[in-house]
Formats: sequence, structure tokens, C-alpha cells
Amino acid sequence: MKRLSIAFVAMALCLTTMAQNWRQMMSRVEEHTIQSEVLGAERNYTVYLPARYDIDKEKTYPVLYLLHGMDGTNKDWFDRGHVKDVMDQLTASGEADAMIIVSPDAGGSVREGKWNGYFDMRGWNYEEFFFTEFLPMIEKEYRIKADKQHRAIAGLSMGGGGCTSYAQRHADMFGACYAMSAFLHMGAEGVDAQKVAQGDKTALLFEAAHRLSCVDYVKNADEARKQELRTVKWFVDCGDDDFLFDGNMDFYQAMRRAQIPCQLRVRDGGHTWEYWHSALYTALPWVSRVFTK
Amino acid sequence: MKRLSIAFVAMALCLTTMAQNWRQMMSRVEEHTIQSEVLGAERNYTVYLPARYDIDKEKTYPVLYLLHGMDGTNKDWFDRGHVKDVMDQLTASGEADAMIIVSPDAGGSVREGKWNGYFDMRGWNYEEFFFTEFLPMIEKEYRIKADKQHRAIAGLSMGGGGCTSYAQRHADMFGACYAMSAFLHMGAEGVDAQKVAQGDKTALLFEAAHRLSCVDYVKNADEARKQELRTVKWFVDCGDDDFLFDGNMDFYQAMRRAQIPCQLRVRDGGHTWEYWHSALYTALPWVSRVFTK
Amino acid sequence: MKRLSIAFVAMALCLTTMAQNWRQMMSRVEEHTIQSEVLGAERNYTVYLPARYDIDKEKTYPVLYLLHGMDGTNKDWFDRGHVKDVMDQLTASGEADAMIIVSPDAGGSVREGKWNGYFDMRGWNYEEFFFTEFLPMIEKEYRIKADKQHRAIAGLSMGGGGCTSYAQRHADMFGACYAMSAFLHMGAEGVDAQKVAQGDKTALLFEAAHRLSCVDYVKNADEARKQELRTVKWFVDCGDDDFLFDGNMDFYQAMRRAQIPCQLRVRDGGHTWEYWHSALYTALPWVSRVFTK
Amino acid sequence: MKRLSIAFVAMALCLTTMAQNWRQMMSRVEEHTIQSEVLGAERNYTVYLPARYDIDKEKTYPVLYLLHGMDGTNKDWFDRGHVKDVMDQLTASGEADAMIIVSPDAGGSVREGKWNGYFDMRGWNYEEFFFTEFLPMIEKEYRIKADKQHRAIAGLSMGGGGCTSYAQRHADMFGACYAMSAFLHMGAEGVDAQKVAQGDKTALLFEAAHRLSCVDYVKNADEARKQELRTVKWFVDCGDDDFLFDGNMDFYQAMRRAQIPCQLRVRDGGHTWEYWHSALYTALPWVSRVFTK
Repeated sequence: MKRLSIAFVAMALCLTTMAQNWRQMMSRVEEHTIQSEVLGAERNYTVYLPARYDIDKEKTYPVLYLLHGMDGTNKDWFDRGHVKDVMDQLTASGEADAMIIVSPDAGGSVREGKWNGYFDMRGWNYEEFFFTEFLPMIEKEYRIKADKQHRAIAGLSMGGGGCTSYAQRHADMFGACYAMSAFLHMGAEGVDAQKVAQGDKTALLFEAAHRLSCVDYVKNADEARKQELRTVKWFVDCGDDDFLFDGNMDFYQAMRRAQIPCQLRVRDGGHTWEYWHSALYTALPWVSRVFTK
Repeated sequence: MKRLSIAFVAMALCLTTMAQNWRQMMSRVEEHTIQSEVLGAERNYTVYLPARYDIDKEKTYPVLYLLHGMDGTNKDWFDRGHVKDVMDQLTASGEADAMIIVSPDAGGSVREGKWNGYFDMRGWNYEEFFFTEFLPMIEKEYRIKADKQHRAIAGLSMGGGGCTSYAQRHADMFGACYAMSAFLHMGAEGVDAQKVAQGDKTALLFEAAHRLSCVDYVKNADEARKQELRTVKWFVDCGDDDFLFDGNMDFYQAMRRAQIPCQLRVRDGGHTWEYWHSALYTALPWVSRVFTK
Repeated sequence: MKRLSIAFVAMALCLTTMAQNWRQMMSRVEEHTIQSEVLGAERNYTVYLPARYDIDKEKTYPVLYLLHGMDGTNKDWFDRGHVKDVMDQLTASGEADAMIIVSPDAGGSVREGKWNGYFDMRGWNYEEFFFTEFLPMIEKEYRIKADKQHRAIAGLSMGGGGCTSYAQRHADMFGACYAMSAFLHMGAEGVDAQKVAQGDKTALLFEAAHRLSCVDYVKNADEARKQELRTVKWFVDCGDDDFLFDGNMDFYQAMRRAQIPCQLRVRDGGHTWEYWHSALYTALPWVSRVFTK
Repeated sequence: MKRLSIAFVAMALCLTTMAQNWRQMMSRVEEHTIQSEVLGAERNYTVYLPARYDIDKEKTYPVLYLLHGMDGTNKDWFDRGHVKDVMDQLTASGEADAMIIVSPDAGGSVREGKWNGYFDMRGWNYEEFFFTEFLPMIEKEYRIKADKQHRAIAGLSMGGGGCTSYAQRHADMFGACYAMSAFLHMGAEGVDAQKVAQGDKTALLFEAAHRLSCVDYVKNADEARKQELRTVKWFVDCGDDDFLFDGNMDFYQAMRRAQIPCQLRVRDGGHTWEYWHSALYTALPWVSRVFTK
């Protein structure tokens, strides 16, 4: 039992010394701001850097863009999704590989009138910002293997629709796409033309979600587009109690009919953080496998 | 696709109306304070009440005492363990049954000199407080089925040792005990007699952990005690990377040799919240099953 | 290390003595034959009896009817589904409760011209046989708690359709229904009138599956029928690669729209024994929970 | 619903045509015999070949040697372990990679006096046979990436001890070792000198298990050996009700103290095929990850 008290002392040492040297061994999370010309605004983003990032200075890493949902921000996956803790555990056991994870801010409080959404909307070309400013800056700033095979995208709810739509229309850029409880389709009846005309931000978001419906994108695909979509690995994960369930099934069934391979899981749960947090335990090993294929 | 926009409107209604009536349908968490004469101090505690608690006013419930670890407080299982979210999901699918969950405060910052521990220590008779003041007050204040079969206890680390020791020495009171990453034994070499004499709080805690070793309690059990211990259902859950791993194995192996049925799981992980949070998905259905036997 | 060689000796003793006394402690499986007047034929069936069935002679048990698929027989769940082994493990840990499991024979080789199906078909009134001869005989022969709450039904493929249809149209008899990779609907275009007229057994089966479509039964339900269906607990479990996937989604979505609570899981896999075997690990604890509510 | 009947027709076509061309797309299992000079006997073995093995004629594959337990043969992992079915599912979803799996015969009925064991024993030099005849033949006969990184070994019970001992003493040959419910140690009291002298086959096996104890091999390791052992990835998987539990813990704790990274899982279960079958769902993805590192 001597071991135990030694273990306690060792742990105490760990917790108190916290030397610079030791800190470099650990994974870490940083938050930064980018000034966007496209948006005419500052945007925050959060980055997870794997253990030894500052030690193995020549090493390059695959990257996962991890998108938050409506009413959320770049902090969510870290504060409530605990993505750092999950990565630390999965990399320790080898179930996930070291990667860089990036969460941009595409939202904030709807009540406070923040812009929400990953699409180009009148007055807020977020998608243009993402592909011409944000992603290039990230992949220059960090040591990222900047190619299709080593770039994945994932997201929840609005971010599940965002990641799917990005991977559909930029299939040459992403090797894998993991959509959780995703908002994949908005029917015509969800578009309020009057509010759109008035520039209502939520109405503009719903109009874009209708225009860029991920379901219609598959249903309307000709063989060339299907072939393109088959170059991406797809995963759809949606709870059986989710209010967005039907759209997820429509998407998956369209993929099946188009013979575009796609994984589907329906687990117990609703549109909740418990669902998205646990999804990471499937998503992070899955994108890791795609990275190493 | 009409369904979707209706779903959005319905969700918006849910999120904005938040009427009193609706709130009563939901589970909720409250924090209170008890003035302890035994301790000569105020102690906080947090209570989870199941959905419809204020509607089904005649219904009584089983109770789970859920203990935090060293350096922690009654808030931890709620703030980082997300126990309310887990319960909401598990009760929705029927995997766990409605129960009342209670977390007392047995700690706080060690650095700031707070008392930590569930045992009676010189100057801080926490166990006496728990059994003569706290538990009786809780089971009077709330509609609890106050018998052995409907009373369970669980905890992490220091609280894993706490719950195990309580269930060992009060086997007539608890039907089930679920220990996570538990601190179950302190060897004699972990006792610092000088610091104990000086009243050092951590030294007193370690001395109590030595004196009340859960491992020795089983090893030294005569047949009468073994028979008593067999009236409780036991579950030990400890990560393969946990620094307390050896003590957990010693305990489990002592239980096997004493032929006291005990479940053991060793999952991937260390002494982390990811481990304890995921343990709830096993622990809460398991105590529910014991409640209904 | 003495323990190990003792363990080996103990195991050897267990394996060689196999005394009558000891055998009664174990669960067991028996196969029998019933002479059906309705069918004008003998039918086999297999029964799983829980541990101590012959010792606790006053005890009564809940019952699960477990249905095989097309081209299969009563032996399948035992030979390839390993249901005895799964039950032995789940009851040892308390995850499932002691129950009696019964598999009737509703099939055999299609190529050899055997009748397949759980429905009444011209010349083969299997459903009538099941409810007027088979089930009454079973519940008389064995010590079964013969009420709705303690009677569950489950099945795979053709048996998934069979169990669902039975629980729909005999909702007063079953407390729970768990459908795996279920054959829940046959469209009109699947009915070959000419072959039906000729008495082709497969054509008759498909005609019955069309006539008794589980999907249509929900879609066409009035409020009284919905209310009746809500008295049963439902679970649908279907692989993402299953060729029957669409019918399962149609059923689940019909249940959602009718507001009849139903669990859904879509796990990785196709129409395979790996899927059905692993489904038992969810199904058996789930029906156990329903039994104890 | 037209889809469904088309699906049935398509399935019927699949099941009936079974063209040579189609069969080559599927994984398959073959059994062969090798004439051993070392043993002076014929030995059977079973090989799993991945899908498209006969089509992609230039492709080479990693290999997993999968060892059966006492009283078993090369057929066990295929007949009861269903390893082909598990591989087919895991490779379809990408969780495991295409590999060749080989089961040699190191046993048979103890009652019938068959030799059992993976070790060199007086009169039966099985280990010599394995490394000088069997493995070289296999890796010549099949298109195997014949290097340490792409060669893994796994086994159950006696085969769990066998794979661990092989990977310990041939650490330059194996990249990964996954031991299930493993027989890792036999104490001196398990050696029956008289029966050993008489050439009793079980006594000789136990003597070898004592002499080559996997636990002692770690406990007695100097730094050079530890360094060597760290070049292999280790995984120990043992049920909480297994009669070999203590030996598994002794091994894991010796590995921890020697600071040789090793995964451990203790799941619910005993020394059963349900345990080993489900272990494949962890083992096969895990060795796949090691292969691609």
C-alpha cells in the first residue's frame, strides 16, 4: 500500500509544479479573434492543439472543423461539449489520433440579434468568409496537413447542416463529414418572404437553409455530382427523440437511393448536449480512421 | 417538410412560454443550506427532483446519495457531472426510474483549508452529521421511500471511499453502493502522526482513511459481517489508467474471496470527469434495477 | 498463486460431476412438439427455462415469445442467436430478470416448400393456431404470470413483422414488443394475384404482409386504436445497411406522428445474425424493465 | 413501397445466382492441413481471407494469428466465435481493416488425450513448430505484409496465455497482442512432478505454463527487456466473473509497475464464448489501428 501514498504525493507534485516544460506535454485550447473584411466584423474562434504540439515542431496534423449550433458560439464545444477532455482520453488509448480541432463563431444569442448561420446571406457572407479568410488563415497559422484526406468537418444542429452543406459543395476539400442532430432541410413553407425582405436575420437563415437544402442537393444530384459526393466519407448521427429526426431520415434515404455510402446511427436521445458530447466518442475515432486511410 | 417548420415554431413556443405549469412537468435541481449542530457550521447540499414531483403530490421516490471527491463540493455532480441531463435522458427512455438525488457538501478547496472527508475526524464529525442530521432531515423534507431497498449511495474518488465505507458500516441502511475511481484504502505509511497531532485537515482525512480502510474491512470480516455485506448490492467502476487502480483491485479481490457478490468494470480512462460522467450511464440504471427488485 | 490451481481443480470438478442437483441450478433449453388441430400438423417449439426453475417450484415467471425469420425455425434463436448464453450472462449480473422464453416454429426451408409466416393464410391459419392452441398450452404447461404486463414478444425480420402485428392487433395481451430488422410492410405491388390464386406459399405470405401491414395499421389508426397501442411499450431496432430499412422508418415515423411512444435504434449492420444476437443485449434488459414496472 | 418488393427480388437474385464473380467479392474461410516434421504429425488450420482477396491480386495484407483455448481447435473462432461475420460487419463500416486471420490447431479433446498448448513440451515442440514451420509457411502462402508492425496475435484462455508469451519472447515479430480471459500464470503448486515424469499431457502443459509464466516474465524483466516489451502494443480483456481473473490482474499490475503501456478492460462476464465473441468488436478495430500507425 506504500504505492498509494506515493501516488498521492506524485499527484500533488503534478498539480503544484505545473512547470512550463510539463505544460508543453499536454494538449491545450486557445481562443483568438480574426478581423474579417468579408463580414466587416471581428469573429472569435477556438483551437484545440494536441499534446506535444510545441515540442514536435516539425510535425503536421490533420484538422477537424467542429461547428456549433444556433444560438451558440465557438466556446460551446469546449465549455459544454468537453471536447478537450474527450480528445485527451481517446488519444491516450489510441482510439483517436492527434489532430487540431477548430471551432469558428457563427452565431450567438438570437434574442440579442446576432447573425447565426454558416451560409452566405444578404449582408452576411459567412461562407465566403469561412473559405476565403478563415480556413486559409487557420491552415497557414497552424501546422496542418492541408489536403482533402486530412481535413474533416463536423457539427451539431445548425452546424450539422453547415458541415454537410460545406462538404457537399466543397467535396474536393473534405475527406469526412460527421453530422449530429443536423438541420439538413427547410421546406418552402419555412421561408417568410416578408421578413426576408426586411432583413430579419433568422428569416434570412431559414431562407438560406431552404435554398441550400442538403436533402435536395442529393435528390437533385446527377451522376457527376453523385460521383463527387462519393469521394467524401459521410456519417449521420441523430437521436430518436430529436425534433429534426425526419430531415435526417430524408437525407439518409436520399443518400442510399443515390448509392452514396453513408453511415447512420440513431441512438437514444433528443436535441441535447448529452447527445452531442457522447457523439464525440464515435466521431473522433471515425475521423481518425479516415485520416489514416 | 411542413412538419419541420411546425417543429421549429413548437420549439420556439416551448422555449419562450416557460409557464409555471410546464415547469412543474420537468425535473429540477435546487440548492439549500443546513445548519449543523454536530459540525457547528452551515453545509450546502443540492437536490435533484424528478419530473412531476410537484404534480404527483402523493408519490414517494427512492433516493440516491451522490458523493463528490476531494477538493470538490455539492455542486460538482451537477455542474460538471451533468447528472440532471443524464437523468432526464435515462428516465425518458425508461432506462432509469424517477428518483431523488442528493449531494451533500463534504469538501471544498484543500488549499483554502476546507475540511474534506466523509468520516468522523477530530474536530469534524462529518459521519455523525450525515447520519444523525443530514439524512434524517432530507428524508423528512422530501417524499422519500425511506427504507434500505430504496436507498442507494454512490460517489467518486474520496466519495467512492465514502459511499463504500458508509454502506459497509451501515449495511442495514443501503440497498446498493456504486463506487467510482474510489479511494478505498490508505496504508499505515500514509499516516503522518505529527501532522495529525497538529490537526492538519488532510492528515486527519488520511488517518481516517487508514483507520476505516474499506479493503481491510472486508479482509477482516467474520462470517456474520460477510453475511451483512451480502445484503447490499455492490458495484466497483475504475479506469485502467487511474492512480487509485490498485486499491480498487485489492477491494474487489477481497470481496471475491469473501464470496460477497460485487460487479466490477474497468473501462478506458483515468481519474477524470469524463470517466465519472459516463459512469452515470451505468450507475443510474443499475441502482434503478436494485430499487425495483 | 495457489488460488489458480485450486480454481482449475474446481472447474474440473464442475465439468465432470454434472450432478442432477447441480443441473437444476442452471438454466436449460428444451424442445417439444405440439399437435395442432387448426393447422392439421405437428409444430416444434423451443423453451428456455431460467435457473432454479425446477427448485423454486412455486415461483411464476414473465414470458417472452421470440420469433424467428423467414426460412428459419424455432431452433435459430438458440443455435445461432445464443439466447441461452446471453440470458445466463445478463441474469448473472442482474441486467435481465429470470423469464421463460418461447420460440415457436413458423417456417423452415422456403425451397423445400415449407409454410412460412405468422399470419392466417388460406390453408394455414397460423395466427389462429398461435392464439388458440399454442400460447394457451404454453401458459398452462409452464409457470407463467399470464397477464399483459408480464408477456412480451420480439422477433427478427419476418418475426419482427409478426411480433409487431400480433402486439398491434392483440394489444390487450402484450406489455412490450421489440422488433428487429422487421418486415413491417408489403406494398400492393408485392402481391402476385395469380400465384396467390395458385396457393403459392410465399405469395400467400406476401399477400398477408400487405393486408396486415404494420405501417398502415398505424397510419389508419383512429384515436381509440392509438389509445390502445399506447398501452404497449414499443422498440424498433434496425441496421443502417438493412434492406428493410425504409419500412422500419415508415413505421417509426407513423408512430411518432400518431404520438405513440416508441424507442428507435439504428446501429451499424445489415440483415445478419450479428445484428440480432447483439440486439438481445438491449432487448432482454428492456423487456425485463417493462416486466417490473 | 415499390422499393421493398424490388429489394426482395434483388435479394433473391443475390441468393440464387451466387456466380463465381460475385463470390470473389466476398470474404471467405478455408481450412487446410500442414504436415509438421517438428511434431511428426499433421495439423489443421483455418484462414480467413478478406473480400476481394482473389481480385486485388497485388495487394498485401496485415495478419492476425487468433489462438483458441484448451480443449478447442482451429475451428472454434469460426464456428462459435463467428469471426468471419464480425469481420464482415466491421470492415463494411470501416471500423476494422482488411486483414488475414489465421487459427492454428493447438489442441482438441483433453479427454481423448490430445496434445494441448502453444509451448514446447517434452515430446511436442509446438512453439518450434509454430515459428519455424507454420508461420513461415503461412506468410509465404498468403499475400501478407510480413513485418512486426503488420503482424498481431490474439487468443482466449490457453490461447490468451499463448499469444502473450509468444509476443513477450518474440517481441521483434509482433506489433500487437490482445489477450482475452488469458491463462497467464501457473504457480509452482500447479506442477505435478510425478505426472510430468510420466508424460501426462496436461501435466506437461501446466509445467510449461509455470516455467513460462507471463506474469513472472514481466516481474523479472530488466530494463532491456522492458524496453523490448514496450515495442509491442498490449491489451488485456477479462471478465469480472472469470476464474482466471487474479492472474490477469497480476499481469496488468506487473505491466504498470514496469511502465509498459497496456490497455485493460474488465467487462461483465465469465469464461464464456459470449465474452470472447464480444471481445472481437474491440480487438479487431484495435489491431487495425495498430496496423495503420
